[in-house]
Amino acid sequence: MNETHDPGLKSWVESANTETCDFPIQNLPYGVFSRADAPAPRVGVAIGDQVLDLAAAEAAGLLPGGGGLFSNPAINTLMARGAALWAEMRLALSRMLRQGARPRPELLTPMTDATLHLPFEVTEYTDFYASREHATNVGSMFRDPANALMENWLHMPVGYNGRASTVVVSGTDIQRPCGQIKPPHTDQPTYAASAKLDIELEMGAVVGTPSEMGAPLSVAEADAMIFGYVLLNDWSARDVQVWEYQPLGPFQAKAFATTISPWVVTQEALAPFRTPGPVQDPQPLPYLRQQGPHNFDINLTVTMQPAGTTQPSTICRTSFKHMYWSSAQQLAHHAGSGCAMRTGDLLGSGTISGAAKGSLGSLLELTWNGRDPLQLADGSERTFIEDGDRLTLSGHCQGDGYRIGFGQAAGTVLPAAAV
Amino acid sequence: MNETHDPGLKSWVESANTETCDFPIQNLPYGVFSRADAPAPRVGVAIGDQVLDLAAAEAAGLLPGGGGLFSNPAINTLMARGAALWAEMRLALSRMLRQGARPRPELLTPMTDATLHLPFEVTEYTDFYASREHATNVGSMFRDPANALMENWLHMPVGYNGRASTVVVSGTDIQRPCGQIKPPHTDQPTYAASAKLDIELEMGAVVGTPSEMGAPLSVAEADAMIFGYVLLNDWSARDVQVWEYQPLGPFQAKAFATTISPWVVTQEALAPFRTPGPVQDPQPLPYLRQQGPHNFDINLTVTMQPAGTTQPSTICRTSFKHMYWSSAQQLAHHAGSGCAMRTGDLLGSGTISGAAKGSLGSLLELTWNGRDPLQLADGSERTFIEDGDRLTLSGHCQGDGYRIGFGQAAGTVLPAAAV
Repeated sequence: MNETHDPGLKSWVESANTETCDFPIQNLPYGVFSRADAPAPRVGVAIGDQVLDLAAAEAAGLLPGGGGLFSNPAINTLMARGAALWAEMRLALSRMLRQGARPRPELLTPMTDATLHLPFEVTEYTDFYASREHATNVGSMFRDPANALMENWLHMPVGYNGRASTVVVSGTDIQRPCGQIKPPHTDQPTYAASAKLDIELEMGAVVGTPSEMGAPLSVAEADAMIFGYVLLNDWSARDVQVWEYQPLGPFQAKAFATTISPWVVTQEALAPFRTPGPVQDPQPLPYLRQQGPHNFDINLTVTMQPAGTTQPSTICRTSFKHMYWSSAQQLAHHAGSGCAMRTGDLLGSGTISGAAKGSLGSLLELTWNGRDPLQLADGSERTFIEDGDRLTLSGHCQGDGYRIGFGQAAGTVLPAAAV
Repeated sequence: MNETHDPGLKSWVESANTETCDFPIQNLPYGVFSRADAPAPRVGVAIGDQVLDLAAAEAAGLLPGGGGLFSNPAINTLMARGAALWAEMRLALSRMLRQGARPRPELLTPMTDATLHLPFEVTEYTDFYASREHATNVGSMFRDPANALMENWLHMPVGYNGRASTVVVSGTDIQRPCGQIKPPHTDQPTYAASAKLDIELEMGAVVGTPSEMGAPLSVAEADAMIFGYVLLNDWSARDVQVWEYQPLGPFQAKAFATTISPWVVTQEALAPFRTPGPVQDPQPLPYLRQQGPHNFDINLTVTMQPAGTTQPSTICRTSFKHMYWSSAQQLAHHAGSGCAMRTGDLLGSGTISGAAKGSLGSLLELTWNGRDPLQLADGSERTFIEDGDRLTLSGHCQGDGYRIGFGQAAGTVLPAAAV
């Protein structure tokens, strides 16, 4: 904890000083933006309803690090430099943006004029399965309710490698995928548009500093490598998934798109919101044991808004704090075989489902595979996503008089390509 | 077929003109090399026992493409430019290296003086499961001999996303991985060095030109995007795999290392060795149907050589032609959901096992999970790999008086890190 976390801090950017602003001076998340009159994307930091141009600030000699951190339109260079510089940069930005510092409006772009891009180059994308409630629910539906949780689940953060080429930033339209589907009670599969398109509400941990091939990590070492977090929607085609996933896991059912929020909220900004996760019983093996709180209390919501309507319906409210396995444990497990981790690796937490019905992080669970349709505000019903629906993930940590917000991870579903 | 395939062609590099040379003028595979007196890696082409420096040849104005293709130590730039330039480059190199052309010894480095590096930046790595014999054998051992082949297997090329960060070039030592293992007849897993370290004999297809997100590919389009092939050893920790792989597939059991051969043999060089694969029954869905021969008749061998011995023992002889699903079908399936494919994506074929006992591409199958040890030339026995063992994959297509060789994908296993 240091001066950048002081709840009393205010910014000379007045819009940052309201209680419900996602981007107060205690947050300072990094992203990549462009504007119509300056179309080359560059790194910025969100403050209130503005973006501070870090490429320009660096060029003006206002930032630590020796230069060259923001000459690429991605934060990978900063992330690779390590935690000492991350802290130094945060402190410099906090001091630059505080009330009392010299205002620098020439470095600001209103968010309404900014186009946001992927904030980092996604090196590889891994997805986990770390909510006990979600794993139990899916196991009940896909396999056997009596043995929903597999035997390995309580011993390791189960995960699989996902597809990095289709990680997109919030706002990108999502084309309904086609895939191989075998409807129940039929003999033959078909190749068709998915009829069970779903979301998965997740957080994504972003690896900052790399690890060497052949070098396992402790949970503490793994935790220190995580630069920050984003909201993550692991779009899933359930009908493709159930036919393809045995024995090698999900593949094309999740390869078509993954949406992340545009601002990477640093782990340092989240430090005041660390909280213990659920008690882990059985005790994890030594390589997975963690000291201190490694979960984060991030309030999460999902809304669904049909095309042509004006009112989004909230379909899920939950918290990241419920996750059984922490992101640090996931990263330690990932490197446990000697797998090299790299700057820009993205680790999806797995679907975040709580115990209550309204806290489930996928339509698969919310509608129990279509059996119990959701009622939306406009009077329509949903089992899975229909064309034109807009799905939006939001999240924030609630501080004393301020919040650390993530913005949104949103996408509108477009019709499938012709088969 | 064009003049570069003429079996009668000879090179002014005399060592390229012997019948058993892997790198005759009909081959012309691309790699990346350095030498002690010129340590910056650069692209080269193998010819006989020499490497032709393409960065130097380009700088001398001897190559098509307009320059800049070989300024990076990777062939990704060339691959991204597309098939017309690939053919033009091959023709130019063939004409430059032929008997009768002006010899350019100043562009040559003896292979014995060359250090070989990864030939391309591996963007993402995907691994398939496309040998019917292998899938049947593994299904029998890991699951149920009566239902060894899962219902989806005959309808799609089953695959999963692997880990790109640990793809290494032939010659790189492989540290025995640790991982979470639950021995049979025990209640609790442990974290320990793998006791069932294995190989998987595969070919790797290298994606040359990219495809867009949301744009499925026909098999013909997919085939045209493949730049070339390498040998690929998908090292596998079987004891880790059997405990972790349900329900999301292999993860740390295969994340610690994948070895590829240093020379990318172009699909164009392999054209004379195209052959039909096994008859596919049931007929694949339309998006997976292929016209003409899409398999390749590549003779493959695996040798194992214990530390301190001089004689490698051949433990497997097979051919790539046996694969049920072709690499082009795999790539079409991979893009079937709209998954974007990128230059440098590596697609492992899956373990290449034939029907005969000596043609099985993994120790898991060769020893039937350790039940039937192998006898090696030095009198020792093996179930799985022991520390110090060197495993070497080799492959070539047999032409009329020449061969198109792949060189080797070799690695020596070192002891695990201390747990």
